[in-house]
Amino acid sequence: MAVELKQLTKRSENYSQWYNELVVKADLAEQSPVRGCMVIKPYGYAIWEKMQAELDKKFKETGHVNAYFPLLIPKSYLSREAEHVEGFAKECAVVTHYRLKNAEDGSGVVVDPAARLEEELIIRPTSETIIWSTYKNWINSYRDLPILCNQWANVMRWEMRTRLFLRTAEFLWQEGHTAHATREEAEAEAMKMINVYGDFAENFMALPVIKGTKSANERFAGALDTFTIEGLMQDGKALQCGTSHFLGQNFAKAFNVQFVNRENKLEYVWATSWGVSTRLMGALIMTHSDDNGLVLPPNLAPIQVVIVPIYKNDEMLARIDERVNPIVDELRRRGISVKYDNADNKRPGFKFADYELKGVPVRLVIGGRDIENNTVEVMRRDTLTKETRSLDNIEAYVVDLLKDIQDNIYKKALDYRNAHITKVDTYDEFKEQIEKGGFILAHWDGTTETEERIKEDTKATIRCIPFEADEESLTPGKCMVTGKPSARRVLFARAY
Amino acid sequence: MAVELKQLTKRSENYSQWYNELVVKADLAEQSPVRGCMVIKPYGYAIWEKMQAELDKKFKETGHVNAYFPLLIPKSYLSREAEHVEGFAKECAVVTHYRLKNAEDGSGVVVDPAARLEEELIIRPTSETIIWSTYKNWINSYRDLPILCNQWANVMRWEMRTRLFLRTAEFLWQEGHTAHATREEAEAEAMKMINVYGDFAENFMALPVIKGTKSANERFAGALDTFTIEGLMQDGKALQCGTSHFLGQNFAKAFNVQFVNRENKLEYVWATSWGVSTRLMGALIMTHSDDNGLVLPPNLAPIQVVIVPIYKNDEMLARIDERVNPIVDELRRRGISVKYDNADNKRPGFKFADYELKGVPVRLVIGGRDIENNTVEVMRRDTLTKETRSLDNIEAYVVDLLKDIQDNIYKKALDYRNAHITKVDTYDEFKEQIEKGGFILAHWDGTTETEERIKEDTKATIRCIPFEADEESLTPGKCMVTGKPSARRVLFARAY
Repeated sequence: MAVELKQLTKRSENYSQWYNELVVKADLAEQSPVRGCMVIKPYGYAIWEKMQAELDKKFKETGHVNAYFPLLIPKSYLSREAEHVEGFAKECAVVTHYRLKNAEDGSGVVVDPAARLEEELIIRPTSETIIWSTYKNWINSYRDLPILCNQWANVMRWEMRTRLFLRTAEFLWQEGHTAHATREEAEAEAMKMINVYGDFAENFMALPVIKGTKSANERFAGALDTFTIEGLMQDGKALQCGTSHFLGQNFAKAFNVQFVNRENKLEYVWATSWGVSTRLMGALIMTHSDDNGLVLPPNLAPIQVVIVPIYKNDEMLARIDERVNPIVDELRRRGISVKYDNADNKRPGFKFADYELKGVPVRLVIGGRDIENNTVEVMRRDTLTKETRSLDNIEAYVVDLLKDIQDNIYKKALDYRNAHITKVDTYDEFKEQIEKGGFILAHWDGTTETEERIKEDTKATIRCIPFEADEESLTPGKCMVTGKPSARRVLFARAY
Repeated sequence: MAVELKQLTKRSENYSQWYNELVVKADLAEQSPVRGCMVIKPYGYAIWEKMQAELDKKFKETGHVNAYFPLLIPKSYLSREAEHVEGFAKECAVVTHYRLKNAEDGSGVVVDPAARLEEELIIRPTSETIIWSTYKNWINSYRDLPILCNQWANVMRWEMRTRLFLRTAEFLWQEGHTAHATREEAEAEAMKMINVYGDFAENFMALPVIKGTKSANERFAGALDTFTIEGLMQDGKALQCGTSHFLGQNFAKAFNVQFVNRENKLEYVWATSWGVSTRLMGALIMTHSDDNGLVLPPNLAPIQVVIVPIYKNDEMLARIDERVNPIVDELRRRGISVKYDNADNKRPGFKFADYELKGVPVRLVIGGRDIENNTVEVMRRDTLTKETRSLDNIEAYVVDLLKDIQDNIYKKALDYRNAHITKVDTYDEFKEQIEKGGFILAHWDGTTETEERIKEDTKATIRCIPFEADEESLTPGKCMVTGKPSARRVLFARAY
């Protein structure tokens, strides 16, 4: 493992390769035999489970319930909402048959041509259509509203170029789908959920994000407004980490979902949808990790503390075990996930490299001399710094240290992000700056034409119109491209 | 709701219709627009989540980790294991294309014939093949073993006749897939997991089950041994509630998964798989519920206690609220899920019927006179009995009552099950008895021919060869059909 670790490409050499290697070597995920579909390995899945648990708690605290809707969607449903079909229908897995049969030549199984579906079914790329066709039967009156459902599910989009976690044909996500009696309530829900995501990203994942509204061009297909949280990766590219959509009455109209309002009149229902996916694993990796491997915020680390003994013989190991076991117990009692790795089939150097690669936040090393001196070597993964400390009250120290690491990882990412937001006023400056990576705040005339020209020229897109901005950014100016009036600066970047 | 409730068909009139109505009226699930696929509604999903949480805890306590494998399986994989393909490959959803395009006549979207897959993909009916093709890369040496993975996933089997929860085209489940260095270890794992399921069914779901081994004919396609837990529903039919399979080296051979053993020799890996599904929701409903609706064991009830106030005016409600709020707080502090339903848009009678239908285990009713007398009416759902009690220490009483209800529901189901196991010695007796429903213990000559003849004659199958049996059942006898020697009695029933 130490040997393999040395082969991890440096970020400065090839960031993209570093990422691909790290995902595989840290046992997070791997390509499957099915094109574009990944296997999420146990260590990677354990991190995803921690994200799920925290998000699920936040959804329930904000009044949402979970439900489950079908994987397959009748093809015709996709065409019901005109913009939606343009955005989603094209690249997706199509089920056309429901039976196989033995090949006549004995070579295996073949599709039974007699078992052709009357209407093809699509593996859900997102569930607005199937869910709104269901909500139709759940809603009669304003008393049936709001409906605040979330679903944890797999979805499929037939991406041509895939990368583990960032863009895969199949991925795991949650999708919230809510139904409301008024426009105001639906807008407030969409905003509430982008704030839930922002809070989760920053305070749980230690991932600084900029919250804002998408330009018309970057909106979800079928939405009136899309809110987003945008992170900045260490290579200067942005990553969309989660979105929340105000869908207006578009899906209610497409599926004819009306309700009797308080004034006893029929009205179309107002909708939102919002989701985050296993893409967050990519954001996590690319925001915090380094050339030695993963750096995990303690909140997401499957193993928060590893203890490695260094010993020459069984007798010494027995003495170390005796001293370490109560520490393990006490740390667990305090809710810390600890691994005491006294396996004798790997050298300490191998173990050190492996736990660094896996991003374990705190490593304690105890040798024979430490037992004599009542000391322990403490290494923190985020800074890779070591110190020797007394074993007295080491548990309380470790608990505090984990909090400190969580804070420090966030602060480091925030400092990096803040140092990579540049204001530019001319298109030449923009073209120069975009090559350096990072976010750019610039004036834009508000048109899709200009936005598309910028994308064509520079590969940069408008990531969002940030909710929060300094006063100068909110002062009207002139579009850097066309010179036309601009209400305020918006946020650009090249993005994943 | 009270009106609808009255329309719930009685079990004695039509058990099957009672079940279908109850699933829908109690808001557990409903048919979706996609043939055979269900929508699991929030109330039903909340029960499933409680099952998931407890099972997941038990899997982790027994050393398992979660992972995620692809939804789609290359068609050719299914043919690799000869028996497996016979059992599974036939009725399944087949993905043949990966793109839609706009219809030329503007009528919507059509499958793009240019986007045909080279090899068709199957939506997983179970994941042995894709997982063993993955394990091949994870396993080199005995040091890589065991692998103890579980997956929570959706699967699909194109069933022709579907019923909500019991038999649906898409269902949710968990599937454990483990890899071992020795036959003994794999056999012990398969046995361990059927015991985990049995413990879960009996002690968490209050569902008495008979554990045993399947006959060769009823084995999982590709297994050397299938262990099962079998429940008995109130209509006298058996329901297979979970299975655990010892797969031998079949899948390792099919996917060429070998390892270097301790003697430095190449050997095929030994395997198990085990799963339970949303079918357990069907078992839950059909074991405990009655003509008034669901009866839920407190462990699985989304709402364990409901409190309904009865009041004539706002002033009286305010006084009740004041008395009830601290009770709600104290019950929640004790980990009880409580709903105080003081909504004024439904009459108490409506609420009572609705919470009975939903199976809320304990109902407290408090009126103005109760406040004066410091009393409360307590109704337990399992027996539908009411008593008036002092409000003093009501919280401790309710906590104990919930335990008592959990125990009583189990005992009731166990008594029913035990009263419906009959020993018969002749085929005529068997044919007569099977019409009455229930389990039958009878002698069988051990051949598939006899087993199939019994099935043809009576629709009864061998549910299992029970692990535990009284001495007489373990005494050799003569097959009730052929008169040939029989080693012991085995368990028959008609089954779902």
